[in-house]
Amino acid sequence: MRRPTRGVRAGRLIIGGGFPVSVQTMWKSPLNAVSLVDVAASLRDLATMGSDLVRFSVPDEQSAELLGRLASESPIPLAADIHFDYRLALRCMDFPVAKIRINPGNIGEEWKVREVIAKARDTGACLRIGVNAGSLPAGLADEQDQAAAMVKAAETEMELLERLGFHEVVFSLKSSDVESTVDANRAFAARCDYPLHIGVTEAGPLIPGLVKSTLAMGRLLGDGIGDTIRVSLSARPEDEVLAGLEILRACRLRSDGVNVISCPTCGRSSFDVRKFLEEVSVFIQSIRAPLTLAVMGCVVNGPGEAKKADLGITGAGKMAIIFKGGQVLRRVNFEAAAAAFREEVENLI
Amino acid sequence: MRRPTRGVRAGRLIIGGGFPVSVQTMWKSPLNAVSLVDVAASLRDLATMGSDLVRFSVPDEQSAELLGRLASESPIPLAADIHFDYRLALRCMDFPVAKIRINPGNIGEEWKVREVIAKARDTGACLRIGVNAGSLPAGLADEQDQAAAMVKAAETEMELLERLGFHEVVFSLKSSDVESTVDANRAFAARCDYPLHIGVTEAGPLIPGLVKSTLAMGRLLGDGIGDTIRVSLSARPEDEVLAGLEILRACRLRSDGVNVISCPTCGRSSFDVRKFLEEVSVFIQSIRAPLTLAVMGCVVNGPGEAKKADLGITGAGKMAIIFKGGQVLRRVNFEAAAAAFREEVENLI
Repeated sequence: MRRPTRGVRAGRLIIGGGFPVSVQTMWKSPLNAVSLVDVAASLRDLATMGSDLVRFSVPDEQSAELLGRLASESPIPLAADIHFDYRLALRCMDFPVAKIRINPGNIGEEWKVREVIAKARDTGACLRIGVNAGSLPAGLADEQDQAAAMVKAAETEMELLERLGFHEVVFSLKSSDVESTVDANRAFAARCDYPLHIGVTEAGPLIPGLVKSTLAMGRLLGDGIGDTIRVSLSARPEDEVLAGLEILRACRLRSDGVNVISCPTCGRSSFDVRKFLEEVSVFIQSIRAPLTLAVMGCVVNGPGEAKKADLGITGAGKMAIIFKGGQVLRRVNFEAAAAAFREEVENLI
Repeated sequence: MRRPTRGVRAGRLIIGGGFPVSVQTMWKSPLNAVSLVDVAASLRDLATMGSDLVRFSVPDEQSAELLGRLASESPIPLAADIHFDYRLALRCMDFPVAKIRINPGNIGEEWKVREVIAKARDTGACLRIGVNAGSLPAGLADEQDQAAAMVKAAETEMELLERLGFHEVVFSLKSSDVESTVDANRAFAARCDYPLHIGVTEAGPLIPGLVKSTLAMGRLLGDGIGDTIRVSLSARPEDEVLAGLEILRACRLRSDGVNVISCPTCGRSSFDVRKFLEEVSVFIQSIRAPLTLAVMGCVVNGPGEAKKADLGITGAGKMAIIFKGGQVLRRVNFEAAAAAFREEVENLI
């Protein structure tokens, strides 16, 4: 069962409150180095893939203004990531930026947080208190028990916000270590009903980062903890979104979209499964219908092992066979395989 | 605590018996389509990365002979994957092939298994009984409870092998579904002390496949179940090995090799973290010393958040800084960064 949490509104998105666990990602480069038109197009693509929110780092006033312009047109809510300078948070809230993340380890004195809250109350923005094991407030940074130190940092902010009567807050407690991320979130989840944004920070490149993130999130989501997730990878935002959706699907917290069964290929394979998967990946990611599709290397095991798939394709000598429920639907050349497969999937939907 | 299991010898490797959980992968294409010299070189590379065993599909007699030639020279034990024709298993055992995988769903009558066992006893090869949810024996294929059907298939083989007094056996029970893979392995693990090869079959392309595999293996390894693992991905064997090693490391079943902490980059980043990671990836994967290395995008958070790393590098304006324990060690141009980082890591080892 999911942990009952308060619902917190970020634009059109509600985090917690029994709403589906949302998936977010973060923009990877300085906004002033790229064309805003391109960023806006990427936001639309990320939204189509299933990203529910995108966060942007705001290191200076120009970034706040560029983010503000994007936020006016974005199909999904945008969040600002603020470190050190609370005035940047204030500036973002001059625009329809839905969520402000501040780091208690570097935002500074209490009066600065009060200023941020006062303006959030006016504009309807929500906050994320983003505690990070590597940048804890002075006095907590050298604690031996990293998880306990993160919980203390989050609790201190929680008490301040409660004193001020501000409850539109999501918390996160992230470490680059799986165990302390899990421990900190379990402990903090037991102490309040605020929604939690979960993830492993600085998790690493695609493969190790995804392993750490899946392990930590798998355990927490298995406990019912986690209202919004971000898979933090040294990889493309699209990969982070795809990974987040897959984690939710594998944890049975989402059933829309395609479950791909595909064989790793072996000495029996006559079909370039990896190349085929690359050719159809954008199409597959665009499908929201709950489908299981199989891409298999050989006819010996393929159709049998994938008989529970809604639709499948397999190599068979120099041809590919498209099958449904274990029965041959169509036989095509390798060159025509991607187009034919797409056609049959569309017929199915 | 790890589940106590019988040790089964596959060449120089012992699976189970309290030995470290081993990592395996599988060769992806027909052996008669490539140069054996190239395959032998790849096997050496996979061994250097940390692969403990490599399996090859043997669909015909020629493949058995090619595998046999490779096995005579391979630095790590090789396994043969046999479906349908028990005579191919016999042929493989004319060579120093360390392990024979048979699938009870398609190997056929009991006397064929007896023949395979008789020869394995003579040559010292071990067996894997590889049960696959998609290719269960007749009579079990249509069972509603997939996990229970897999357990029944494995138990039937186990009883036969025990009647014959043959114990050099590893079992696997794989499905493309996380839950039934976990359920089947838990149930079977409770019924015997044979070592288990764990994995999710036909898990899919890199991202979804790695998510499913990490979730299933994370749960099983967390229960102490699993003596050897294969991450089955529609991706390169190198990716499967890297993923397997990372899963073991994240589950604290391995401490050698590098733990990479790297930031996902954001609007603060002046350093191409992803490109840098690609440049140093082969070097990093070759290190067996237990190190934590950090690759960060910006100097604002980088050195602080990675102060627990043994060594780190971060962008700082138009330069990169190599740091150790939060202190600057060296300042270099981006172009010289990979070479300088490598040098400092080597100094450290």
